[in-house]
Amino acid sequence: MQEIHTHQLPNGLTLVAEPMPAVRSLAMTLLTPAGVARQPEAQQGVAPMLTELIGRGAGGRSSRDFNEALDTLGVHRSAHAGNRHLRLSATLVGDNLDAALPLLLDQALAPNLDAKELEPSRDLCLQEIAALDDDPQRRAMIKLREQHFPAPLGRPSDGIAEHLQALSLDDVRAFWQGAVVPGGSILAFAGQIDWPKLRDTVASLTADWSGQADEVQPTNEPRRGYTHLDAETEQVHIGLGYDAPADPDEQSMLQRAAVSVLSGGMSSRLFTEVREKRGLCYSVYASYAGMRDRGAVLGYAGTTTPRAQETLDVFVGELRRLAQGVESDELQRALVGMKARLIMQGESTGARAGAIAADLYVHGRPRTLDELAGKVDAVTLEDVNRFVAENPVKDLTAVTIGPERLNFPE
Amino acid sequence: MQEIHTHQLPNGLTLVAEPMPAVRSLAMTLLTPAGVARQPEAQQGVAPMLTELIGRGAGGRSSRDFNEALDTLGVHRSAHAGNRHLRLSATLVGDNLDAALPLLLDQALAPNLDAKELEPSRDLCLQEIAALDDDPQRRAMIKLREQHFPAPLGRPSDGIAEHLQALSLDDVRAFWQGAVVPGGSILAFAGQIDWPKLRDTVASLTADWSGQADEVQPTNEPRRGYTHLDAETEQVHIGLGYDAPADPDEQSMLQRAAVSVLSGGMSSRLFTEVREKRGLCYSVYASYAGMRDRGAVLGYAGTTTPRAQETLDVFVGELRRLAQGVESDELQRALVGMKARLIMQGESTGARAGAIAADLYVHGRPRTLDELAGKVDAVTLEDVNRFVAENPVKDLTAVTIGPERLNFPE
Repeated sequence: MQEIHTHQLPNGLTLVAEPMPAVRSLAMTLLTPAGVARQPEAQQGVAPMLTELIGRGAGGRSSRDFNEALDTLGVHRSAHAGNRHLRLSATLVGDNLDAALPLLLDQALAPNLDAKELEPSRDLCLQEIAALDDDPQRRAMIKLREQHFPAPLGRPSDGIAEHLQALSLDDVRAFWQGAVVPGGSILAFAGQIDWPKLRDTVASLTADWSGQADEVQPTNEPRRGYTHLDAETEQVHIGLGYDAPADPDEQSMLQRAAVSVLSGGMSSRLFTEVREKRGLCYSVYASYAGMRDRGAVLGYAGTTTPRAQETLDVFVGELRRLAQGVESDELQRALVGMKARLIMQGESTGARAGAIAADLYVHGRPRTLDELAGKVDAVTLEDVNRFVAENPVKDLTAVTIGPERLNFPE
Repeated sequence: MQEIHTHQLPNGLTLVAEPMPAVRSLAMTLLTPAGVARQPEAQQGVAPMLTELIGRGAGGRSSRDFNEALDTLGVHRSAHAGNRHLRLSATLVGDNLDAALPLLLDQALAPNLDAKELEPSRDLCLQEIAALDDDPQRRAMIKLREQHFPAPLGRPSDGIAEHLQALSLDDVRAFWQGAVVPGGSILAFAGQIDWPKLRDTVASLTADWSGQADEVQPTNEPRRGYTHLDAETEQVHIGLGYDAPADPDEQSMLQRAAVSVLSGGMSSRLFTEVREKRGLCYSVYASYAGMRDRGAVLGYAGTTTPRAQETLDVFVGELRRLAQGVESDELQRALVGMKARLIMQGESTGARAGAIAADLYVHGRPRTLDELAGKVDAVTLEDVNRFVAENPVKDLTAVTIGPERLNFPE
């Protein structure tokens, strides 16, 4: 296992890099504080608009020149407005980093935000929202987050159509100036890396970047409860969520293990009870979403209308049954699966860059795969059973999309 | 670059393995000739039913025991009924192969096909079909294949609901006996491998497996033309397809390069003309589907109803404009992107196991990443421009799903 390097620059940008000597590729993840949670209340959509616009020319190069230059270097890239961060990701052959890095950073530091790119960007953002009606599974999970988390932490990443329609280029520029700043940003690399050189190059390229963004705080209580959205869908789409420890909490690994017993493999409880035994639905899962200041378990099931009520009942029943404890052998399987996934993650530069960037934000430092494997090894049956007994699933947030409302089990 | 080993066993099974010394993981892909193309005409659904059933117990172990045993070894696995092959895939930590391989092979060689698993399996298969109505993008591309390829090569992998409802366990067993046979099957491994030992272990585990399946031949002429499916979708979903060289054809690499000019990166033609300049749709792509005996270029665009006609016109216009030739710099970008994707593939055991298995079927031998990179390097502007001029896009197959039929450009 190689050392993971970190370095904070005077402007507040934190740099983190994990050398992976066996690979030729290199992955970069830049987290900037320009997530949808930071959008002004009446400008929900300015983050996805900025995300679209920063791919359309930067550092004085036109959209066409800019994208041709990156494609000439074989850089695969993406941008996404998440809740806390606007994330820029790139994967490339390591040899091309010197040429690609100034371009990639220009997206954040010097986007053109060109007036003629505004309307096509707005059109695409509006179409993303319209497309949700043809994707009820994704819509259910977006609505679940909106109901479960307090504003603005549950905001949809696509924005609100009415707000998008009213946005001006000045709005986008103001948001960029205030939110795409080094103080609060994390720049992560994994793969073929020469650390001292990379550190100096990043320092030089970002020397003139300045600004600081504080953490966004929740502004109200979450709505929670059961929400049904009427739709003439063929399936019924069910989203369920409940509170869990924040990721930095010592108990988060116990929560991960418990969720893995529920939904970690083909012998896990949800898969066998809902899918295998009863044939109730072709897709069912639960996962732990661990954040810096809070955590949740979020689950989904998609099924036909006649089976929807039974699916919901069995799904909720399995979540609640967790409090009665888990068996030694199912816990062992869950832990083996978690460790196998860590080993797979260690062979992907993209997965590692994303993971150490998230670690910096959530834990304030990167965690090696050895450290994580050690935490999995340290989980005991006694600790998990104490945790699930002390944290029974009570207050469920539920969303259904389909032709009719279901009876939510008390 | 390591050597890729191949070995044919007396029963006809072909084994192929690529050692990747830098990794700890190992991926397996088994292709058996039990694809949907081989289903009896009136039993369209027996392949996905078999796919569901072979995960539910094998070698005398119950569904529960079987899946617990694989989860105890941390084996991530999936099964899919494709057109030509029923594919079993698995990824695991290499150290666990000895214990996992007998179980993984039992799925194909000795599935229980237990009567009590029949109805839950049928229910899930029927739900997969019903779920298509909530996934119009996937539905459009399934319909496109059905219209573009001759029967039975364009069959939907989900089957037909009426056929599924009538299937008996004997039907599934008969299909398994005739189609899950070593003659025509390919077993591929990539990752942490001890080749002589692996070869001997596989030979020993499959010694009693026998049978041969011949290649399925097309039985009619494809339908082609323009098909519109009326649906109250929010978006209009457009699928387009046209004939291309078969993958073993010397010209297939020229076709790949041309499609990469169309759809390989953010500066590619479809992305810039349809998405960036006009903001017509948030998703548009074309890809080359190279098969052993034929090839096709298949494309998709999803857009709103008011923009659907213009999207179709621009999309078709770009496909046809290809015949006028490509520029040197856009070809260079396309080739750089193709080589970068090869390097990324070389760092994923799952991708390599899948690729060498497909190579064995399509080309009769595995191709190293160096060989493929050499083929990309050998592509010249002159060759691509001759190829696109000699192969203009004429007879397009088109499918639209949405509230109204479009005018298909002549």
